[in-house]
Amino acid sequence: MSASQRHERAFVRTFFTSPTAVEGKDDSAAMLRRAAQLRGMEAPDVWVPDNEDATAPSMRDEGAENIIDVVSEHGADVPGEIHPRVVWHRDSPETRYQGFQHMLEIADPDRGALEHLDGFVIPEVGDIDDWKKADEFLTIVEREHGLEERRLGMSVIIESGQAELALADLRDEIGKPTNNLERLFLLVDGEVDYTKDMRAITPTGGLPPWPELRHNTSRAASANGLIAVDGPYDDIRDVDGYHDRMTANRMKGMLGIWSLTPGQVTEANESPLPPKTGQWMLDVGDRAVELTETDGRYVYEGDDLELTRIDDETYRLDVGGDQRELDAAELRETLVELTEYSPSLGDIVDSMERFEAAKDAGEGAIAMERSARLVVGDTTVTITSDRMWDEATYQAAKTPIDLFQDVYEHRPDQRGALRDRYGESVVERAMNVG
Amino acid sequence: MSASQRHERAFVRTFFTSPTAVEGKDDSAAMLRRAAQLRGMEAPDVWVPDNEDATAPSMRDEGAENIIDVVSEHGADVPGEIHPRVVWHRDSPETRYQGFQHMLEIADPDRGALEHLDGFVIPEVGDIDDWKKADEFLTIVEREHGLEERRLGMSVIIESGQAELALADLRDEIGKPTNNLERLFLLVDGEVDYTKDMRAITPTGGLPPWPELRHNTSRAASANGLIAVDGPYDDIRDVDGYHDRMTANRMKGMLGIWSLTPGQVTEANESPLPPKTGQWMLDVGDRAVELTETDGRYVYEGDDLELTRIDDETYRLDVGGDQRELDAAELRETLVELTEYSPSLGDIVDSMERFEAAKDAGEGAIAMERSARLVVGDTTVTITSDRMWDEATYQAAKTPIDLFQDVYEHRPDQRGALRDRYGESVVERAMNVG
Amino acid sequence: MSASQRHERAFVRTFFTSPTAVEGKDDSAAMLRRAAQLRGMEAPDVWVPDNEDATAPSMRDEGAENIIDVVSEHGADVPGEIHPRVVWHRDSPETRYQGFQHMLEIADPDRGALEHLDGFVIPEVGDIDDWKKADEFLTIVEREHGLEERRLGMSVIIESGQAELALADLRDEIGKPTNNLERLFLLVDGEVDYTKDMRAITPTGGLPPWPELRHNTSRAASANGLIAVDGPYDDIRDVDGYHDRMTANRMKGMLGIWSLTPGQVTEANESPLPPKTGQWMLDVGDRAVELTETDGRYVYEGDDLELTRIDDETYRLDVGGDQRELDAAELRETLVELTEYSPSLGDIVDSMERFEAAKDAGEGAIAMERSARLVVGDTTVTITSDRMWDEATYQAAKTPIDLFQDVYEHRPDQRGALRDRYGESVVERAMNVG
Repeated sequence: MSASQRHERAFVRTFFTSPTAVEGKDDSAAMLRRAAQLRGMEAPDVWVPDNEDATAPSMRDEGAENIIDVVSEHGADVPGEIHPRVVWHRDSPETRYQGFQHMLEIADPDRGALEHLDGFVIPEVGDIDDWKKADEFLTIVEREHGLEERRLGMSVIIESGQAELALADLRDEIGKPTNNLERLFLLVDGEVDYTKDMRAITPTGGLPPWPELRHNTSRAASANGLIAVDGPYDDIRDVDGYHDRMTANRMKGMLGIWSLTPGQVTEANESPLPPKTGQWMLDVGDRAVELTETDGRYVYEGDDLELTRIDDETYRLDVGGDQRELDAAELRETLVELTEYSPSLGDIVDSMERFEAAKDAGEGAIAMERSARLVVGDTTVTITSDRMWDEATYQAAKTPIDLFQDVYEHRPDQRGALRDRYGESVVERAMNVG
Repeated sequence: MSASQRHERAFVRTFFTSPTAVEGKDDSAAMLRRAAQLRGMEAPDVWVPDNEDATAPSMRDEGAENIIDVVSEHGADVPGEIHPRVVWHRDSPETRYQGFQHMLEIADPDRGALEHLDGFVIPEVGDIDDWKKADEFLTIVEREHGLEERRLGMSVIIESGQAELALADLRDEIGKPTNNLERLFLLVDGEVDYTKDMRAITPTGGLPPWPELRHNTSRAASANGLIAVDGPYDDIRDVDGYHDRMTANRMKGMLGIWSLTPGQVTEANESPLPPKTGQWMLDVGDRAVELTETDGRYVYEGDDLELTRIDDETYRLDVGGDQRELDAAELRETLVELTEYSPSLGDIVDSMERFEAAKDAGEGAIAMERSARLVVGDTTVTITSDRMWDEATYQAAKTPIDLFQDVYEHRPDQRGALRDRYGESVVERAMNVG
Repeated sequence: MSASQRHERAFVRTFFTSPTAVEGKDDSAAMLRRAAQLRGMEAPDVWVPDNEDATAPSMRDEGAENIIDVVSEHGADVPGEIHPRVVWHRDSPETRYQGFQHMLEIADPDRGALEHLDGFVIPEVGDIDDWKKADEFLTIVEREHGLEERRLGMSVIIESGQAELALADLRDEIGKPTNNLERLFLLVDGEVDYTKDMRAITPTGGLPPWPELRHNTSRAASANGLIAVDGPYDDIRDVDGYHDRMTANRMKGMLGIWSLTPGQVTEANESPLPPKTGQWMLDVGDRAVELTETDGRYVYEGDDLELTRIDDETYRLDVGGDQRELDAAELRETLVELTEYSPSLGDIVDSMERFEAAKDAGEGAIAMERSARLVVGDTTVTITSDRMWDEATYQAAKTPIDLFQDVYEHRPDQRGALRDRYGESVVERAMNVG
């Protein structure tokens, strides 16, 4: 089995869950109906009618019916994929059987939802043998309804130590003739239940960061051609915190995240796309501070770093209490080391185009130069940094472009927003590079 | 095999080792005798007469005899479990055979120690096949002495890369008819020898933090119904450092730790229990500062955060050099984001009781509100935060209560200390909730 | 299979790659020829003529010829081992066959390079079954050329999630009669391609730190008697950053690193060796500051810590905003807690010799004392710290000495530099201890 992608989407930024049936409302499916009609940046890449935790146990049969109704009616226009979550538990055969029955109903072609349905989400899985039980039920559902084998995708929620261990077994099991695990699509972390399963305790009751879990999930996705998605960030008002988490996740190769509200969907759809404009940053001890552009110069406005001109040839630089006297050349070199640049989409496209041209001309590696005028205090310094690009650099830089192209291709409803953000010409070049 | 617990204790906070025989003393068993008589918070959950590293090689036969003597005499009154550590090494058949002989002697019912003995600790294990060798010796000991199979528990010290890898194999091997690995009880990290086995070097010769090892140990415990315990913290005078390590461990689901002295036992018995009083904290940049309660108001006394009232409607907030002008509503919202609350045992019991009542009334999720008057400089601000609790939140919050109940039930000698700490009524409610 | 070392070198500090053929030069092998003539601290422990990424695809046949020429001519005098890197890819049979053909040519005894050749480096491996394919080709090369089985070592580059997973399978596969994986030598991380394979994105395009990958590589080396090497640090001018990375790696048991230039080779050869002089450090909040020695006293020159004598018996200590009043004894105790000492090679040898003498005298544990006069502001305080050393401490402290001895024994060309650095007498004692 090659690790190449088996599903239409190579990237999933957003995994948005909606309760399937809310008690005591005129229309218990109202939330489902509203979610089905989200469009553009508010609409997720994967929409998950959630017949498990978001829905009261007593409402789940009604929830399954609501999924059928709403997906039949609105599914054709939903811009993302549709993957309902059913009930499942590694320790409960009743729960597993209930999940199977709901899948059998929801996927019944005569009920009208199936043609818009991409797969199911299975929570609370355990060992790899437990994953196979869910896969087998899906195989039976497919056979019963006369569907092609693996017509239905399967995504799992990793919310136990057992399931985390199964991530390492997956590559040995996928592709065996006695299962259809090639149907796997998303590996989603579920940190609330994982924290309970691991019996972890934090002083405030908040969730631990679980960096190893996220690494292991991302690694399993990479090794098996799947897509890794982080769990819910439940402090909904903390937008900065949500972005910090997504930035950290991307550094682990986990580009998708659960979203609990249309607001979070918007943030999470936009966050992994490269910025519209590049950004110079200055490393002042323990953090990087963004520089403010004014008339093409980049101004440092904090006070962790101080630069004083002593005489014509000497500067004193003070970074976090550490003082150095430097001449002009040393100053430039030091500032090159302290600055970093976050490239925009246009910058990435520029660099890739230049490398592609160089490669066509027979060069294997070229230096990418970038200059800027930095202003610290009263002093303006022009710095130039260069970075060698070879085939490997080029390949690693391509990930955000691959993501951009995947979004542009599969989410026509977001094309307008992308053109508004980046401009026609950058979008067009980004679609043609690579 | 279900991951449910197979041993009496679901939690072990403390793992306390005592040398079994000290040369050149009138009574070589004096330390063992003293340790056997510890009670209350000074007495560990698991007491380990240590016939390996804590005892000189030449004294180990005498050590085995001392274990038999002291456990026979005092074992009935020891409040925790008793698990002697014998010698073992993955690379040395002589050492393994010596460990087997000592187990055979110590567990001989005619010698009187057995009835107080809960199991053995096996150090320096390697691959899972090496664990099985120790398990097989225990099976033979049981058969030779006419004991029930798995009467003796087995705990292992993870102090090699091989043993860390075995943690991931455990779930495939436990439950096989050719072994009795279900006897496993504790997975204990041993960072000194692990550091040697990994050939790690630190500038000062101190131990590396090994976060991945601790994660993997905790995960294996979770996946196999076992209990994870961290290794010794050898800077005995550094009480703050010991607590920081335990807090970090708990965030990984590793609730137990090795203790080298009765003082460390006390700290480690108390540390995982919820605090007596709740604590508001303020996040000032890179750390959280505890607020001081005065007359029901919570006062910030540091100078990383400054709040100035500019006029009737505007405040200026300065956090670590970052200044913002805010109106009253924005100020409240910002402070809600910057504050955190560590709940007391009573707080946790309150929240759980409220959620249980709501669930009985048919509600699936409720908002838990908490208000406080914060004083920063001359300004008092009343903030209110709420957090949604659903079944998953409730389950995750239950861990400290499960721990409390396990301690209260199995450690009658600590009940007085618990009542003194929390008061009768909170203790009683904590025993009835959940 | 025991985890004991199967190769001549127990440690590899440096892994230095050179392009095998550069287009458009008079002598396409010039860089290779220059690298082969490096000596002393500029010469790596493992030299890698790189017929993969460092060499343009069109030049690789010529590259293989250049390897044969240069290694035949200069190989006898190269002070380190020689392991050319050939092409390989888990997803490309053509690439694998090309790699095989190059190995067959380069290892042909009639061509003259073989006698100086220690093995090959295989990049871009996948599952353990992919490692076996490379191993099998080496077995065939050995048989075709009439070489002893396992005459050729094999090192792999871990640059995919699949290969990272294979690290955990290695110990189950090595030693099977159908492979010769015992030929494995180095496990080398390749973070550029790994980042691409994991689809990670960083804001600046720099590499993520991948701590879990480095842990897992080091653990596999430990469990299988192999040597772990970190990937290239491509910011060549950032010498401090390179040292920080090596320090962090050593705390993970990963003592070797890729070097891209002779300058990096020198840094990486010297970095893991213990320092020439010991260093006192003071912990001021979030970092450790080195103290300056003046006339045998250690002076703190920063301003994060302030010490004021209030009266004859009381001091005020201010650490990062936290003020405490202390008497002389408490002050000493606090300073002992705040100070750390990085021992020199001589210090380590001293401690080991003292422990060995104590052990010969029948003692199992001794206290190692270290005193210093610290100067903070106007106050001089003499502090004494002691640390218990037992067999485990001794064993863990031995790693830098084992490394030193391995270098001294296998790198005669570096002995002069070692004697210059440490002095004859310390070098001699370091060679005799342990």
